Amino acid sequence: MKSDLDALMKTRNLDALIVFGNAEHNPPMTYLTGGGHVSHATLIKKQGDAAILFHGDMERDEAAKSGLKLISYSKYDFDALSKKSNKDDLLTGALRCELMLADAGVNSGRVGVYGTYDLSAVFGILSHLQKLMPAMEFIGEAREDSIFMHAMETKDESEVARIRKMGKITTEVVGKIANFLTSCNVNADEVLLNDDSSPLTVGDVHAKIRLWVAEHGAELPSGFIFAIGHDAGVPHSSGNPTDLMKLGQTIVFDIYPAEAGGGYYYDFTRTWSLGYATPEAQELFDQVKEIFEKLNDNFDLNAPFKNYQKMVCEFFESKGHKTPLHTKSPVEGYVHGLGHGVGLNIHERPFSSLSNGDDHRLAPGVVITSEPGLYYPEKGMGFRIEDTLWVRPDGKMETLAEYPYDFVLPMKNWKK
Amino acid sequence: MKSDLDALMKTRNLDALIVFGNAEHNPPMTYLTGGGHVSHATLIKKQGDAAILFHGDMERDEAAKSGLKLISYSKYDFDALSKKSNKDDLLTGALRCELMLADAGVNSGRVGVYGTYDLSAVFGILSHLQKLMPAMEFIGEAREDSIFMHAMETKDESEVARIRKMGKITTEVVGKIANFLTSCNVNADEVLLNDDSSPLTVGDVHAKIRLWVAEHGAELPSGFIFAIGHDAGVPHSSGNPTDLMKLGQTIVFDIYPAEAGGGYYYDFTRTWSLGYATPEAQELFDQVKEIFEKLNDNFDLNAPFKNYQKMVCEFFESKGHKTPLHTKSPVEGYVHGLGHGVGLNIHERPFSSLSNGDDHRLAPGVVITSEPGLYYPEKGMGFRIEDTLWVRPDGKMETLAEYPYDFVLPMKNWKK
Repeated sequence: MKSDLDALMKTRNLDALIVFGNAEHNPPMTYLTGGGHVSHATLIKKQGDAAILFHGDMERDEAAKSGLKLISYSKYDFDALSKKSNKDDLLTGALRCELMLADAGVNSGRVGVYGTYDLSAVFGILSHLQKLMPAMEFIGEAREDSIFMHAMETKDESEVARIRKMGKITTEVVGKIANFLTSCNVNADEVLLNDDSSPLTVGDVHAKIRLWVAEHGAELPSGFIFAIGHDAGVPHSSGNPTDLMKLGQTIVFDIYPAEAGGGYYYDFTRTWSLGYATPEAQELFDQVKEIFEKLNDNFDLNAPFKNYQKMVCEFFESKGHKTPLHTKSPVEGYVHGLGHGVGLNIHERPFSSLSNGDDHRLAPGVVITSEPGLYYPEKGMGFRIEDTLWVRPDGKMETLAEYPYDFVLPMKNWKK
Repeated sequence: MKSDLDALMKTRNLDALIVFGNAEHNPPMTYLTGGGHVSHATLIKKQGDAAILFHGDMERDEAAKSGLKLISYSKYDFDALSKKSNKDDLLTGALRCELMLADAGVNSGRVGVYGTYDLSAVFGILSHLQKLMPAMEFIGEAREDSIFMHAMETKDESEVARIRKMGKITTEVVGKIANFLTSCNVNADEVLLNDDSSPLTVGDVHAKIRLWVAEHGAELPSGFIFAIGHDAGVPHSSGNPTDLMKLGQTIVFDIYPAEAGGGYYYDFTRTWSLGYATPEAQELFDQVKEIFEKLNDNFDLNAPFKNYQKMVCEFFESKGHKTPLHTKSPVEGYVHGLGHGVGLNIHERPFSSLSNGDDHRLAPGVVITSEPGLYYPEKGMGFRIEDTLWVRPDGKMETLAEYPYDFVLPMKNWKK
């Protein structure tokens, strides 16, 4: 949680944090500002002190929404700094940064640098700054082990409320898509039809998903998945837009909308077969459903996440599937990890990899996905069920948005 | 243009470029890959050689769409590198980067670093890499003067076609909004009404804009502007969602949709007054329209962009308004620059600031905005007209999406 930052800084021997970039699509900045349309900001937090947000004059109103201490860039005489640097923009930036650090009371020590931003400019500025301030050491951290990833790992109730709200939007859109698909007419080749009797394509469904997510004012990363048949069997395939929507084929529908501007995510997957399912598909789906339910019955407070990855692997191997437990990078069977944390990053701590340490665990306040699946692209089928779950402070696991798990969706205007 | 990169590298004494990050929302990467859903990629281009895209195995298909030479990360034995680094993820990344640079034939010299990405991890990797490869110098460049910003400044025909397509989507959405607004019923207080007779708010219009842009599969940055009255007079205000939509008030509507995944943008603004306009507003609008047209009549091939900023300032000052020509950071009158380049960045070279050099010019192939405006927040009014224009290779200026400039939009169900 945010309140852990000072303790984490102490442990890591970081005297200050500096975050570069916009308040949107920039998790560390969004984390501390709460969001808002603040461009080209800089945030400095000295250990033990409140964070200071440096911003352009034009964005004062949006910056004020953060509740942080504010300093306008106009405090620093850009023309004078530019003259001092001989119009070297990177050196000018470094000179300004030096003044900002001084205003934050940071004159020496180890400073962690963060942000999703134009790394060329920041690298150039930091190269100058390191020379200007030899008593300072600037530190980069590995993505999945950064101080922010550790602080973000456990969520407070206001963060969970934001994730829950995205879950509500997600399940509403999924319900609308299910209703739309099952209301379609079907031709003699078992292909779904648009109102004008043209065949319905995966691309048509993609457009509806985008539209209905946008209607809620949420953001839909372009990697969302609505894939049928072969592509449902390839975990990272978004679905081929020209594929026809047919009965009796597996559909994997995986969406992870976020608050507009790159805020909190929700992650969700269902697998459907329209009208009917082949016996083989039904059997594989039932296996995924069985282990999904077994996981929910077994999740334990503070247990290492990888224990459940192992449980899934052992279950699937007992059914004759390949898994990462005994096969390196399988392309068929159970081919990925069980889950990951969800927050301002769609993938964040804790992770479920078998190689992770026990510190990736179901601690109170973490929000994780549980998403077992089976993939057989050559058979033209794939399966995944995914919910986003919160480990509540009382130790109970709570699914943040309920939605039915039905595999076969009966068609309203079609019978076998 | 892309074909200028090698010459620019030579001029800047850069032996290689290295771009980090995803192929989406990452202009330098998108520029060289063309887009596609490739996450956590690395791209290395040696001077004179074709670029190599390094990618994860799972994203082979998307990576292949780039047409670039591909190398899968799986070529590099991650477990061995991780062992060598004692499980230091940043050092592991640097060791892999060293091998990738060697595969690209880059063993010494100056290497520019680029990308919009997690700068903490990249800074950490580069810090290690600099120690591993002392014969190499890693260089960051200032955002607006980077080699990519210079290459991107002039567009080839395929890029212009993509911008033009976004212009078509933009004007279709704007036309739908105009039609929607003018079809509304109006109450006795001159407030527009929803179908259920509740008052129509700016927030309602924002939702429609988001919906109709999404319907086209385009992306709408959350900073788009549809603002009325006072907020129309504040250039960066998105509009207050709870403001009521009323007749006879100025509306500034500024949207800049992009291709999904963060591709090419279009930038567009119109100013409207529904039903009627006050005489004062009409007079100010007419001034903006007059200079907008005068600019179109005067744009000259290869002329410095700032000449036109000066022309606008002089015109507005002759009408009694404050401008940046003789007032530092005015908050009323003409308060911003005339325009900027548009491409994979919503703001890119050339820029129109009076302080810029003559190299910011209307060279063949540049795509710019022309967006004069007037702002009087205390009077509750603001005005801006903006088109995106292409300086064609034949030297003619072409507006990339035509749309009427009407200020007063007559209401279909209301008469004064």
